[in-house]
Amino acid sequence: MQAGPCILRAVRPSDFKNLSALCADIKVRDIERYTSEWFGRTSNIKVVARPRSVHEVSDVLKYCNSSGIGVTVFGGNTGLVGGTMAERSEVAISTEFMNRFLEIDVSSGIATVETGLILQNLQERLAIHHLTTPYDLGARGSCTIGGNLATNAGGINFIRHGPLRAHVVGIEAVLANGDVLDLMSKSRKDNCGIDLKQIFIGSEGTLGIITKARIHCPSLHQYRSVALISLKGDFTSTVLETLKKAKETIGESLSAFEFIDGEGAELVGPLPSGMDPKYSGFAVLVEASGSASVSDKIENFLEQLPDSVEGVVGSDLESMSKLWHYRELLPVKMASLGHNLKYDISLPQRELYKLVEGIRLRYANRPDVLKIVGYGHVGDGNLHLNVALDPQFERNPSLESDMSHSVYSYVSECGGSISAEHGIGRDKLEQLFFSKPTVVLEYTRALKKMLDPNGILNPGRTIL
Amino acid sequence: MQAGPCILRAVRPSDFKNLSALCADIKVRDIERYTSEWFGRTSNIKVVARPRSVHEVSDVLKYCNSSGIGVTVFGGNTGLVGGTMAERSEVAISTEFMNRFLEIDVSSGIATVETGLILQNLQERLAIHHLTTPYDLGARGSCTIGGNLATNAGGINFIRHGPLRAHVVGIEAVLANGDVLDLMSKSRKDNCGIDLKQIFIGSEGTLGIITKARIHCPSLHQYRSVALISLKGDFTSTVLETLKKAKETIGESLSAFEFIDGEGAELVGPLPSGMDPKYSGFAVLVEASGSASVSDKIENFLEQLPDSVEGVVGSDLESMSKLWHYRELLPVKMASLGHNLKYDISLPQRELYKLVEGIRLRYANRPDVLKIVGYGHVGDGNLHLNVALDPQFERNPSLESDMSHSVYSYVSECGGSISAEHGIGRDKLEQLFFSKPTVVLEYTRALKKMLDPNGILNPGRTIL
Repeated sequence: MQAGPCILRAVRPSDFKNLSALCADIKVRDIERYTSEWFGRTSNIKVVARPRSVHEVSDVLKYCNSSGIGVTVFGGNTGLVGGTMAERSEVAISTEFMNRFLEIDVSSGIATVETGLILQNLQERLAIHHLTTPYDLGARGSCTIGGNLATNAGGINFIRHGPLRAHVVGIEAVLANGDVLDLMSKSRKDNCGIDLKQIFIGSEGTLGIITKARIHCPSLHQYRSVALISLKGDFTSTVLETLKKAKETIGESLSAFEFIDGEGAELVGPLPSGMDPKYSGFAVLVEASGSASVSDKIENFLEQLPDSVEGVVGSDLESMSKLWHYRELLPVKMASLGHNLKYDISLPQRELYKLVEGIRLRYANRPDVLKIVGYGHVGDGNLHLNVALDPQFERNPSLESDMSHSVYSYVSECGGSISAEHGIGRDKLEQLFFSKPTVVLEYTRALKKMLDPNGILNPGRTIL
Repeated sequence: MQAGPCILRAVRPSDFKNLSALCADIKVRDIERYTSEWFGRTSNIKVVARPRSVHEVSDVLKYCNSSGIGVTVFGGNTGLVGGTMAERSEVAISTEFMNRFLEIDVSSGIATVETGLILQNLQERLAIHHLTTPYDLGARGSCTIGGNLATNAGGINFIRHGPLRAHVVGIEAVLANGDVLDLMSKSRKDNCGIDLKQIFIGSEGTLGIITKARIHCPSLHQYRSVALISLKGDFTSTVLETLKKAKETIGESLSAFEFIDGEGAELVGPLPSGMDPKYSGFAVLVEASGSASVSDKIENFLEQLPDSVEGVVGSDLESMSKLWHYRELLPVKMASLGHNLKYDISLPQRELYKLVEGIRLRYANRPDVLKIVGYGHVGDGNLHLNVALDPQFERNPSLESDMSHSVYSYVSECGGSISAEHGIGRDKLEQLFFSKPTVVLEYTRALKKMLDPNGILNPGRTIL
């Protein structure tokens, strides 16, 4: 059972004229921004609609729905799983001109925005009121709130604030048939039965287009402290024990807990001052932040660790960014080696590093595999497994599919997720069955069928 | 369009025998616990099934679904909105014997349980590992995890941990037709498209029975400090300004922010030591808790308040519980006056207290209205408006429906919620349209129809 895309037709020249009557900003030329994605792959978008109101969104959708034309939904086009890759000829609907900051209730921290607003612009507006977004990610300068909601963005503050979903107070969403769902609650506490807005959060644009949102925003805290420590031993007795200690001692002020394995640390280079350059084991970055000084908490945490553990603390901006830089340098260094196979997965913490070890055991001796590293937001069970391929060799599809199968089979066995943060899009669609039982996939399709019976929204993506 | 209950038939004697073949524990006698609810109203339950496995749950549901018999789902039966009140003759399915604590992953804090487990029992098991549940409520000694999930329980730690939903890692749910949905992720970060488990959380048993759950549990912190302060002036410039200060200064360690209005404080009696007994204005209780001492944060917070503000701080167990007792005494004192009309609503914070003032203006001079008080979890926009009626007068349905209409119309105008914590059940069903637009109600019904086409689950409740 496929959710409907079979009945879709290609975009015709007459659609351009018809759509222009429904939406003031319709483009067919200079649309390269919409026909390519993050990794440079090209997509089959023929027309771009850039509505300025929910009515225009609704009218364009109604037209496409009744005509059987596929629609690709665009936020900032910063996704990493091909979510904007249209296979057939399609219409793009971009929310970029629906980007107004509508209201802020300072005492509750609830901000109301149009979803084309760029994350960083929202953060800057919030900062005036000593508030911030409950999530943050590298793409902040170009990703949109709508895209963040549609993908239930994770990011670096998850360990502190939990999923974005937890902070969404309300949304407005337009369905494939043009119906506008006003799910704009004004309070976080709203227990009126089934919470329909939840199905749109994380649905990657396949059930509707989110046009407005109300988000709970926490206070922006000034105090921050970062420790980078070096641990020797196995993952469980070092990294996980340290995480437990961090939760106990830093507690509610813990805002990041990241790890890099020894292979990764070796690649990045000597750890900052005072640490063993001949590194083996794990490097862990711990951040505390709060409404009052958190230095004591970091100190107390470090005191609880075995004497053999070496660490360096940064409490001023410069030293903190130096320590973060160490962590951020790893994917850059990996990319410089050659093409990277990247896996963004989550696993129960105890099983997390066994995957890296297993993959290393299986592939490390192949001449075309240069380096296998594990790093990530271990506090959330989120592992980034990156495998650098030697550019002297041709890409080998059978190696890649074998490795993908090994990784996702292990994830499946452990009950983990094949996509911790980045979503499914087009790239992980075929692997979805590793994470979801058949019956769950069936009911998901039924939900899609109910809300988008013609399957016009992001066809061929996210829903298997 | 009603979601199907019209086709349901009454329970017959033969059903008892048939159900006994499917589930070992079927009762038709001594079932008073299931035929009455919190307020003592009686319900039309004829047979009680107490399955011990998901297979038994599935088989009983399959039977009821194919026979067209209504089912009422029981957790701890502690709900306050008549969610277990069966109008027609129905079968009860109680999860009470599916109450095993299955697993805990200490480093991630993720606990796996059967959903008949009582909240307090889970809390006690977690405490061994210095963990606790991400929510807490008065009914902890008898409410079940399944009931908490089905109602998306709020409670007193919402301001710290957000909605229960944010901490649900996975669930197993059985649909009306007996299909078992395995939505048991093992990691909080799991972005594989549409998150189907979300529709069951808060659905009050109308879409399926939640039989298993995996919940993220935060660290149990030892340090706590409470302040009770007395504020004079209007709500916005006192309570809301104080809330803003608390968020800025106590920040991530803020774990409760409760208010009681002057009428309420007058009823409870003089505020603890050193405070003006002739009270007018507002009493605010602020709690900080954390992994290290929070006394400095409370002190710093109090220093930021105007000199005229009086307050008392409790940092040892006895003085803290004395201060909490002050807050908890209010509903008890109100109940002692006579029958209470109780409204559990949420509103944008700036509009919150205007409702109490408006209701007081409209009804305070009526001889049968004794006292109108406002109190609640103001940090979450949650207002408890209680109206004590004079027992010397007969209950007056027209007064009650007029007041209900006034309250909910105001809530509707402000975009608030007619049920902040307690849900809809039977009691708030007719008022649902005050909080939800027609089109949202329609799609909610369509979702119900898709998952429970015969409408056997909790008929006549939650879904309008």
